[in-house]
Formats: sequence, structure tokens, C-alpha cells
Amino acid sequence: MIAVLRIGHRIDRDKRVTTHVALVARAFGADAIFITTQDVKIKKNIQSVCKRFGGDFQIETGLDAKKIIKSWKGTIVHLTMYGAELEKAVTHIDTDRDLLIIVGAEKVPPYFYQIADLNVSVGNQPHSEVAALALFLDRYTKTAWERKDFNGNIQIIPCVKSKKVFSKGTT
Amino acid sequence: MIAVLRIGHRIDRDKRVTTHVALVARAFGADAIFITTQDVKIKKNIQSVCKRFGGDFQIETGLDAKKIIKSWKGTIVHLTMYGAELEKAVTHIDTDRDLLIIVGAEKVPPYFYQIADLNVSVGNQPHSEVAALALFLDRYTKTAWERKDFNGNIQIIPCVKSKKVFSKGTT
Repeated sequence: MIAVLRIGHRIDRDKRVTTHVALVARAFGADAIFITTQDVKIKKNIQSVCKRFGGDFQIETGLDAKKIIKSWKGTIVHLTMYGAELEKAVTHIDTDRDLLIIVGAEKVPPYFYQIADLNVSVGNQPHSEVAALALFLDRYTKTAWERKDFNGNIQIIPCVKSKKVFSKGTT
Repeated sequence: MIAVLRIGHRIDRDKRVTTHVALVARAFGADAIFITTQDVKIKKNIQSVCKRFGGDFQIETGLDAKKIIKSWKGTIVHLTMYGAELEKAVTHIDTDRDLLIIVGAEKVPPYFYQIADLNVSVGNQPHSEVAALALFLDRYTKTAWERKDFNGNIQIIPCVKSKKVFSKGTT
């Protein structure tokens, strides 16, 4: 199991970025996202995407980060621009174990740096936790997202010049 | 030259996501971002990052998308979940020519699908233009971001357990 733990989400300020984090988690191969702040709207949004586009991605909000971390049996990785280089770091993660990926918003308390088995950076430049999560999952899963079938009610057919959508509901 | 054209940016709603798009553009190898909506705050933010972390990334806001597109001499790519598969698509892009990457916010008018030489999808699942841009640049540049030196006043030293920052200003 791969789960993402989103900490420090502020409902007004981060709603769109956290939504992107959740959608990226789902699209690039995570099984679940836990958001520490309670946010009913994001949960509904993501569940609506899952219903239409498929997969069995889970989302929970309003959870205690430390409780999740303490009860986690697998590896814990924290994504941060200060961490170890992605390419080297992923080779040290045992893919047979469950993986919890901590993704912060703005300043992350020292506790999370210390509790993580590995702090991992996707480049050491400031950019985005959304991009960092996507690249991390891309490398960690060896690009498995490219071959994943979500078997959704809506399926997009790749197309160079227009939109092609296959919808089970309309057949 | 690689430039990103951000269209449909709404100052209040998209400020954080567009900031992430701009930072990802810089961190993953683009030379410039053009944001169609005028937004002085984002411009200042990104210029401040460039000053501290280095590189010669350019940002302009309040530009006419169609004018930029019409005067563009190189290839134009539009990132969309409806586009052609990333892995195949990048092999069709001539890396010797300048590249303009169009990145929308929410619904993109048909004009941009039609004017683009190539509509490219980073997976056909809904996720994030931030992640899509990062993955596209990763593949298009053949992971050049991993080796790029920004030669900034602030440099982060990769570290598994804490923060190591080298600052020219303090030496």
C-alpha cells in the first residue's frame, strides 16, 4: 500500500493545491490520502472523481498525523527540498513494504524530518509539493502509472488534436 | 528556448497553483513563463526566488496569448489530459527548435487545442497542470533538471535527516 499524508492544509489557502496533491496521489499510483485538516469539500470532490474515472483510491480528512505515523508499519518518507536526492533515495526504499509519503504545505515542523525514515528531495530548488509527489511516485513505481487501467465510467482516448471521451453511462 | 504560456489564470483562485506552475517551470528547465493575466505579486515572488536561488528564469504577466502564439517561431505544445501519450509524443518534438508549452487553468478554449502542434497528456486521468508540466519537462529534457546548477546565493545540500543550507550572503 502507498498512502500520502498531507499535513498543514489550510482550507482557504491550500484547497486547490491540496486537491492537486490528492489527484496526483490517485493518478500516479497511491492507494490513499490522509489529510490532517478536516475538509468535507475536498473529500467529496475527490470521491466524485473516483466515481467517474475509476480506481479504488481512498481519502480521509481530519486525522491526527502523529497517530497515523505511530501506527504505520511500513516505511515513512518525507518529501522536502532539503532531503536526499530522489534517484539515490528511491533505491534505498524497500518496495515490498507499505509506504507512507508525508507532504507538507509551507513550513514543516522538525518532528516530521526526524520521524521519517528518509527525507527525499525532488531537486533542491523551491517548486511544488504537487510536482514533487508526481516525480517521486513516477520513480518509485518505475512509471507504473503509464500502464495503469482505472477502468472508470469515463475514459479518455489519447488524441493529438481534439477531445475523445468514452463514457459507459452513454452507451 | 523553452517557455511556458500560462492561460486562464484568475488572480484570487489560482494564485498558488500558478505560482507552483512558475516554480516548476524554473526548476525543471524552462527559461521563461508568460502569464496572460497581469499579476504583479506573482511576478515579484518568482523574481525573488530567482534572486536567491539563481538562474536566469524570466517571468512576464499581462500578455496577449494569441500574440505570443502568432509570433512564436518554434514548436507549440498544449498539455491536456485529452492529448497524445507523453512517451510517444515527446519523440515527435524537435529539440533543436524553441518550444512553447501551453498550460491552462480549468477549461481551455478550443483555439488552443487547434493551434498547438501537439496536444500532450501526462496520463489520461484528471490531476494537475503542475504535475503535468514537471513530468513533461522531465521527459522532454531527459531529466536534465537533475544535473542543472543554478549557482544561486542560496544552495541546499541534500541531506537525509535535517536541513543543510549554504548561503553566499553569510560567508
